[in-house]
Amino acid sequence: MAPVTNPRIVFKERPQEGLPIAGKHIVLDSSHTIDLENVPLNGGYLTKSLVLSPEPAMRERMRDPSITSYTTTYITGAPIVAFAVVVVVRSEKEEVKVGQYMYGQTPWEAYTVQPYIEGRVKFEPDQWAPGTFDMDSLVLQPVPDPKGAYPLSTYTNILGTPGMTAFVGMEGVLQGKKDETLFVSSGASGVGSLVIQLAKMKGMKVIASAGSDAKVKFMLSLGADNAFNYKKESYGEALKKYGPIHAFWDNVGAEALDAALEFCLPQARFAICGASGTDSIPYDDRYRLKNASQIQKKRLKIQGFVVPDYIPQFAAQFFQEVPALVAQGKLKSKENTVGEKWDDVPQSIADMLKSGHDIVGKPVVTVGSV
Amino acid sequence: MAPVTNPRIVFKERPQEGLPIAGKHIVLDSSHTIDLENVPLNGGYLTKSLVLSPEPAMRERMRDPSITSYTTTYITGAPIVAFAVVVVVRSEKEEVKVGQYMYGQTPWEAYTVQPYIEGRVKFEPDQWAPGTFDMDSLVLQPVPDPKGAYPLSTYTNILGTPGMTAFVGMEGVLQGKKDETLFVSSGASGVGSLVIQLAKMKGMKVIASAGSDAKVKFMLSLGADNAFNYKKESYGEALKKYGPIHAFWDNVGAEALDAALEFCLPQARFAICGASGTDSIPYDDRYRLKNASQIQKKRLKIQGFVVPDYIPQFAAQFFQEVPALVAQGKLKSKENTVGEKWDDVPQSIADMLKSGHDIVGKPVVTVGSV
Repeated sequence: MAPVTNPRIVFKERPQEGLPIAGKHIVLDSSHTIDLENVPLNGGYLTKSLVLSPEPAMRERMRDPSITSYTTTYITGAPIVAFAVVVVVRSEKEEVKVGQYMYGQTPWEAYTVQPYIEGRVKFEPDQWAPGTFDMDSLVLQPVPDPKGAYPLSTYTNILGTPGMTAFVGMEGVLQGKKDETLFVSSGASGVGSLVIQLAKMKGMKVIASAGSDAKVKFMLSLGADNAFNYKKESYGEALKKYGPIHAFWDNVGAEALDAALEFCLPQARFAICGASGTDSIPYDDRYRLKNASQIQKKRLKIQGFVVPDYIPQFAAQFFQEVPALVAQGKLKSKENTVGEKWDDVPQSIADMLKSGHDIVGKPVVTVGSV
Repeated sequence: MAPVTNPRIVFKERPQEGLPIAGKHIVLDSSHTIDLENVPLNGGYLTKSLVLSPEPAMRERMRDPSITSYTTTYITGAPIVAFAVVVVVRSEKEEVKVGQYMYGQTPWEAYTVQPYIEGRVKFEPDQWAPGTFDMDSLVLQPVPDPKGAYPLSTYTNILGTPGMTAFVGMEGVLQGKKDETLFVSSGASGVGSLVIQLAKMKGMKVIASAGSDAKVKFMLSLGADNAFNYKKESYGEALKKYGPIHAFWDNVGAEALDAALEFCLPQARFAICGASGTDSIPYDDRYRLKNASQIQKKRLKIQGFVVPDYIPQFAAQFFQEVPALVAQGKLKSKENTVGEKWDDVPQSIADMLKSGHDIVGKPVVTVGSV
């Protein structure tokens, strides 16, 4: 068989502030080819990309390496490395079988010889701030063939990083209790939609916010007791009406965090999972918090976290409990196919990062099929 | 013996925002008298006030009761109730002996029949936000006669609430470790001066800030490795030079907290003990935080606390360790007598609350002697 085109998504240029621009910072490169039958595997295996998962942490990987954050950064000129579901098409590795589905960090290109080299950060801890996480260590892991019980895209959502994030944050950080009131910002996101459902399973009252009426409807369908569109009703007005809150799951920061500080009860707990409300806004233009003195007045516990910190402690419990609940239909996972070809990928990343975007459900791009 | 004048400090009017004004919100009332030999004790005991301890929490007690905070509020028209060292001058209570020194919450007046009634909040938990602490429950406790080993004022400082606050915050919240770098704001305060010393005993590197050169000198004398006057060098400049920090003890909030967010290491811990940088500033004029998104990026643990939450867990350890270290001279307690008569008391409260005041050492007013 003749070589085929092997399209890849390249991190061409670092966005200085604000959102990355498709075609400028993130580009499609169709100049590579690959001979699927003869490319040397060197004892590894060849994967085909099926479902790509644009996720907020990708913005952190685009930052200048001199800025401290929780993750390593992308290499300019190399392929974007991020989460995807792949299938094995050839293998020289005994424990990896052809037809096996896998999920994890991989270069965003149609076909990859694994373990991949291009785009991988050669991680030397002393060259990064202490605590920086080597994102490339989240290598591909085998996942079960769902055999039609759920779509493969579920591995990018409730059974993937967003689901794991919601699960470890709820168990390890927030520790929600029956009859408490929880507020979750960006409740229609991949993480937020599972937070709502896990909180309801614990018997909590849930207030959820998002940026469109369609998302409000979606959050109510997941069991949220109160949901509001922050573009129509301010965070403060809504929390005054539906609160006060015992616990806050924050994916947004900015006005959401400030209102939670104002309308939380003493000794409330805040799990800070994201800051989408400021991440893509130039530093000097960002919302500035008015109510930080409440941290002391109300004796709050506020914790920022990222999922890798908790994987060792909670991964086993997650895989024991969550896939079964999904297969039984007790947990809903909604994915939104925002693209079906490689051309769509750069824009899908930019769109996902835009605060207040209109995509209901976890955005995915389905670039291949079995 | 004829009745004597019994001066008292009255909480006359609630300050709406900003600092209380001596003579307006807090006034001396010299119209009362007391017959020391014949006043009925009703099975209680009569105390004489010796050393009064103006403390920041008094500002919280002056707020409008509709505003949620950690403590109950003062009753207008009643005496100010706050921390003091007293001596027992008469007693009908078997376990309380004449000549016994006591320390705790008591009305600020020359003589008081204990247990006191005026100024005490009749605490009904369901009338306060959950978690509101009944400050009046911190009743007088016997303290040993120091017999010249240290002045009685030490009970208002390292052996009192500031000392207990520093101790429980270091053991229960911050959990400082050897070789870590700690930044403490308002390091010359009662709390801050013990935080510096406890951190040095743990083998930490300590950066400390305060608002005058005299305080910088004092903090260095306590063992701080780096100390700076934030009126001459910004928090950001200083932390850039002396940091980054593993841990932050915050008594100030505002610019200090914002700079700590910027110059802390990933997974740093913040113990939030006070917010003197914003407490006395009208809400709309307060400093607004720029760097809150670092909570997630750096996976920070930030906890506000007040000392009563930790007394059950740490009181025994405190009284086992700290008085001995003070008597041995291994911990220094510096008090500053800012007044020696009842006339001085209202202004001493206002001065203590003023952010960036010039008083080196814990302010005390010595209103009586044995």
